[in-house]
Amino acid sequence: MNKFWSEMVNRTEPYLPGEQLNDPAIIKLNTNENPYPPSPLVKEAIAEQLEGQLRLYPSPTADSLRETIAETVGVSKDEVFIGNGSDEVLAFSFMAFFHPGKPIHFPSITYSFYPVYAKLFNIPYELVRVNEDFTLPAELFFGSEGGVILPNPNAPTSLYMELSSIESILINNPDTVVIIDEAYIDFATVSAVELVKSYENLLVVQTTSKSRSLAGLRVGYAIGHPGLIKALVRIKDSFNSYTIDRLALAGATAAFKDRAYFDKTIMKIKETRSRFIETLQEMGFHVLPSQANFVFATHADRAASDLYLQLKEEGILVRHFNQPGIENYLRISIGTDEQMDCLLRKLEQLLMVSTT
Amino acid sequence: MNKFWSEMVNRTEPYLPGEQLNDPAIIKLNTNENPYPPSPLVKEAIAEQLEGQLRLYPSPTADSLRETIAETVGVSKDEVFIGNGSDEVLAFSFMAFFHPGKPIHFPSITYSFYPVYAKLFNIPYELVRVNEDFTLPAELFFGSEGGVILPNPNAPTSLYMELSSIESILINNPDTVVIIDEAYIDFATVSAVELVKSYENLLVVQTTSKSRSLAGLRVGYAIGHPGLIKALVRIKDSFNSYTIDRLALAGATAAFKDRAYFDKTIMKIKETRSRFIETLQEMGFHVLPSQANFVFATHADRAASDLYLQLKEEGILVRHFNQPGIENYLRISIGTDEQMDCLLRKLEQLLMVSTT
Repeated sequence: MNKFWSEMVNRTEPYLPGEQLNDPAIIKLNTNENPYPPSPLVKEAIAEQLEGQLRLYPSPTADSLRETIAETVGVSKDEVFIGNGSDEVLAFSFMAFFHPGKPIHFPSITYSFYPVYAKLFNIPYELVRVNEDFTLPAELFFGSEGGVILPNPNAPTSLYMELSSIESILINNPDTVVIIDEAYIDFATVSAVELVKSYENLLVVQTTSKSRSLAGLRVGYAIGHPGLIKALVRIKDSFNSYTIDRLALAGATAAFKDRAYFDKTIMKIKETRSRFIETLQEMGFHVLPSQANFVFATHADRAASDLYLQLKEEGILVRHFNQPGIENYLRISIGTDEQMDCLLRKLEQLLMVSTT
Repeated sequence: MNKFWSEMVNRTEPYLPGEQLNDPAIIKLNTNENPYPPSPLVKEAIAEQLEGQLRLYPSPTADSLRETIAETVGVSKDEVFIGNGSDEVLAFSFMAFFHPGKPIHFPSITYSFYPVYAKLFNIPYELVRVNEDFTLPAELFFGSEGGVILPNPNAPTSLYMELSSIESILINNPDTVVIIDEAYIDFATVSAVELVKSYENLLVVQTTSKSRSLAGLRVGYAIGHPGLIKALVRIKDSFNSYTIDRLALAGATAAFKDRAYFDKTIMKIKETRSRFIETLQEMGFHVLPSQANFVFATHADRAASDLYLQLKEEGILVRHFNQPGIENYLRISIGTDEQMDCLLRKLEQLLMVSTT
């Protein structure tokens, strides 16, 4: 507390991101980064921008990137909004579509940034309790007074909700905005983007941080009806005219243009995921059916908090949430085959020790 | 208006940035960019980051850049906050230090983003009328209920306020935050950073966009008492964990390390400014005594709006604000000697036509 702080600062409960250790020897499977580098076209495009353009402001409207994304996902440019990472897109969305005094709804187990935004912007919320198997009960999101936000696939559970369920949530919230946070959608089956043309209350948020290997570049985006996009632009232009720098604009545009590289990387990560889940199951883990680039797993004989610490000592970082209901689960990002093999060997050793 | 928009969206009156035309043939003197490229070290540092790190999240705390800036300006790391351009730093500052219901004070002629932030965050404001010569009456900022924000040098007037006046504003607002927005300070005499150790209500905001030629990279920062910096960090960590991408972090750090290049560029721009002002005066312009990388000038015989349009037709872009009190002034960025010579030749032609 400090006499200069606003009421807004006083009510914040900041988000705590996963640990970012600098030691390159560590196998880092805790923040769902892509184990593969971005498309080689990204590097070329950025190198080109370095030739004399850095002194000039970037485009405040990010037209070229918006066009490229629009083409990629099959919408028009005025249905695309770009932000400084999908976290900024989400923050602007809370400002643009949610209201102090009207409770919004999100799952009891979900991305832990949602309650942080809600506190910052003074938006009340009600948690929708997930089912025992961690699936989401669609009907409990119906008729929300303030709006709905949920990730699909959900984090940290990795579970995917079918589009028919999402559609039922949209139909049953005709007067409020439903935000589907698709950070991990490229590792799943179908995106809700195809519903954008039919539901003007749908905002789909995606990111280049996971499937396009650009966590270091900070580019997220939203797809929705032009009326919703216009609201996000008004907020952005009242907050910061130039949110995306020249190098990020050029790099992200190039990443979307290399479809073949994208397809190859996604397929590889899905293959590694299948193989990793199978082996975990053989070792006695219960693993949720993942449609993300991470798995959510628990072992009957061993406390997840112990495994987390033991792995960290061995130089392998996974994520553990000390939260009721999931405190015995580990969230493990899918890395390269070599990284997952190394993790599996360590786990095998740790589990052997425990049974003797 | 749209039924999905929040009250916040409805009350916004977005900022309109200066025109960003893509034609490289245009002489662009309208957004106060640096005419010289950034230090060659910037390119090297960014190229290094391109080797395999883009897939990983950047540092959420930007420690290395904060340390470098702290060393450069002579404070400690916990007195430095980094943001995605100084506009984001200012937006966070409005959230952190200003209060709905308590009017803040800023000059009647100033950076036009301040009222935009105020509307967005529902903060009332009172304009302090500038003197007839556009200088700021320090005593009218005393005893503000909500706080003070002013640029030094002021924009778009280019006028510098002496530190003794700023100190008097600090002393006479002991319970509210005084933000000195120093976007152009490196082209002036002395920064208010030296007052930070003495006044815990002072926040100084600076940017790499002007003096370090990095408008395209989006890195701004604030210097203040650790108590104020902590508030900004709380807001940022409730809004977006990773606001600065890896390339921007590396590039900005390198720019601060090349002191010799910085000194050389600043000196060159100041020389061009002196010469340009002298010639403008010879041509009958009244030019305010600039301490920024732009000048604010008016001509008795010609409407600024006409000159603006005529120059634009000739491929030279300067800035004209259609605002009472300054509608007959042009704000002209200082470019290279060649660019200014070209502008002066055009102006000479335009003024000759008017006198016949």
